[in-house]
Amino acid sequence: MLGRPRRLALLAEGNFSLLDAKTAVGILRYRPREVVAVIDSTHAGSTAAECVGIGEGIPVVGNLAGAARAGADSLVIGIAPQGGELPPTWRSLVCDALRSGWDVIAGLHAFLGDDPELRALAQASGAQLIDVRRPPAARPIAAGRAARIDALVILTVGSDCNVGKMTAALELCAALSARGVRAAFVATGQTGIFVADRGVAIDAVPADFVAGVAEQLVLEAAQDADVVVVEGQGALQHPAYSGVTLGLLHGAAPAALVLCHESGRHAVRVPGAGTWRDLPPLAELRRDYERAASWVAPARVIGVALNTSSLPEDAARQACERAGAELSTSATDPVRFGCAALAEAAIAAWRERRAARADAPRGRHAHHA
Amino acid sequence: MLGRPRRLALLAEGNFSLLDAKTAVGILRYRPREVVAVIDSTHAGSTAAECVGIGEGIPVVGNLAGAARAGADSLVIGIAPQGGELPPTWRSLVCDALRSGWDVIAGLHAFLGDDPELRALAQASGAQLIDVRRPPAARPIAAGRAARIDALVILTVGSDCNVGKMTAALELCAALSARGVRAAFVATGQTGIFVADRGVAIDAVPADFVAGVAEQLVLEAAQDADVVVVEGQGALQHPAYSGVTLGLLHGAAPAALVLCHESGRHAVRVPGAGTWRDLPPLAELRRDYERAASWVAPARVIGVALNTSSLPEDAARQACERAGAELSTSATDPVRFGCAALAEAAIAAWRERRAARADAPRGRHAHHA
Repeated sequence: MLGRPRRLALLAEGNFSLLDAKTAVGILRYRPREVVAVIDSTHAGSTAAECVGIGEGIPVVGNLAGAARAGADSLVIGIAPQGGELPPTWRSLVCDALRSGWDVIAGLHAFLGDDPELRALAQASGAQLIDVRRPPAARPIAAGRAARIDALVILTVGSDCNVGKMTAALELCAALSARGVRAAFVATGQTGIFVADRGVAIDAVPADFVAGVAEQLVLEAAQDADVVVVEGQGALQHPAYSGVTLGLLHGAAPAALVLCHESGRHAVRVPGAGTWRDLPPLAELRRDYERAASWVAPARVIGVALNTSSLPEDAARQACERAGAELSTSATDPVRFGCAALAEAAIAAWRERRAARADAPRGRHAHHA
Repeated sequence: MLGRPRRLALLAEGNFSLLDAKTAVGILRYRPREVVAVIDSTHAGSTAAECVGIGEGIPVVGNLAGAARAGADSLVIGIAPQGGELPPTWRSLVCDALRSGWDVIAGLHAFLGDDPELRALAQASGAQLIDVRRPPAARPIAAGRAARIDALVILTVGSDCNVGKMTAALELCAALSARGVRAAFVATGQTGIFVADRGVAIDAVPADFVAGVAEQLVLEAAQDADVVVVEGQGALQHPAYSGVTLGLLHGAAPAALVLCHESGRHAVRVPGAGTWRDLPPLAELRRDYERAASWVAPARVIGVALNTSSLPEDAARQACERAGAELSTSATDPVRFGCAALAEAAIAAWRERRAARADAPRGRHAHHA
């Protein structure tokens, strides 16, 4: 999606925080060498690390000129706003970037390339508008094919949006690779696509084809991998996005789930709904995810990934221990404490799957492998 | 969507059966006065009623000329093919209809209006291309609002696709109206839209907005109704479409569900998957639908709608009795045996809801009403 080596300016004007600038933070964490500046006039003069804890030495600048001085040649829309529209106050900055010939890369639902003004500006200067959320033209219909492959498919699922499902998947995939396992990451959201330079923003796909697209992504990834780690989306308990979650769960047809949660989050966040209902205990979330998976193919939670970024270190360790004890499984903050136990659990699940499939006649596994 | 009184020819070439021509059959059942002919050369010379049991006196003709002689002025694509593409062999017939100045109305995923050749033909003759499945431009995000309205929302849910969810919803809505209840039908699929002349094909909406669109449809319908009956889609157990089902369930946030099933169907139909897993018993389906609903707002199954079209009358009655006994609830084939018991159950649920909301302070019902 990034297409070529780039010098990125991440636009996060007025929103450069861990909570609001999910996309910018993801790119800073996983592609830091391509980022030359973050644009947020409310934090100009500081560094990315000072604002969000990552991006040592990357300057936060106040405007496009500042980003140009830092050497930028491309602008990334660094937020994932509810509803997926370009914030109106950012429009003139995007126009200026296009006039300067910068490519503009976005993961919004409102495709920049469909905007006549922006398209005209891009054509005039030779800049590219890259909408990573635009769905593929193909309309595949899922048929449970991902449940029948030899590779172990792992999906990260969560208690809510923005709890760390992408991060857990990337960290687990890296930990598996470090242990010599042929592991592949499947990106299903805009930030994951920026990081992996491939994938599909599954939430922008017409609903009938969500599972089909997920199935295809898994089948493709499994061609070169023994373990496929799929980035989860949304949550079964989220009133707006649960359909995306279930479509992805049934299309990817994982045998293993990693349950992701942010320590200290007690309710699903639903803008426009005031307080929403309390989150159930992790054990109940596990039961519901495993039940929902079983409607198409059985899956079990092999570990918990906690996002403990709001806790001091001691409390974070205790939170992981509590979660692990509650579910009798391994639990870690993959960013803070590494992914060793999750990787070991994944490898064990993969060995089990391999043994089961070697033992059993193939036909009998058509529906339940 | 039909826009004006029309004289419709329903195109079902080679597919005019109860199983394959779902859209044509739905229009024949609920808007028979607007249909002047069905096009299917393999059944030319017979009547619609002879082929599918409804459409007394409506001729099946072999080609466009035959439909023209019957007085047609508009062509409806009468099937809902897997994947939603126009069958290639129908293309020349659609082109001929456009050349004759007929409007062409379709509920396909592949929008006819985006096809350059068809668009050019329509422009040349002044014909309209009407794609009822094209999603609305708005991108609403659901926030559980439909759970908080005074009206009772009823959703039809099912054991599979094409078991009678739309029909059950339409029949229940009519039975409620006949009993003096202000009831509104919400169409969520192409055939429902043809019948109701409004609605959104929820399965074509980008996945992030399925629940939001469903929520808006319910809120709008509730402005003039005490009971809102929503047409369900797909099934939680379907590997391709479960995400649509859950998004609709959480967006519409019904308090009452009608469980729909086709007698004699023992497995979910998944083209491309060979045989798929067996359907669970109705009691298990009920448990799963009620559980999934409860993730956002509680709902309970108030009755069963069986499609017994494959059974003789005696066996059909027995099937309804068995289903009712199994779930300790009312069960009927709404087309064959009417909807009285379902309507009574719905009215009882509506009275209960009204009483509960009158008793309780409003604030306490924000999340659980």
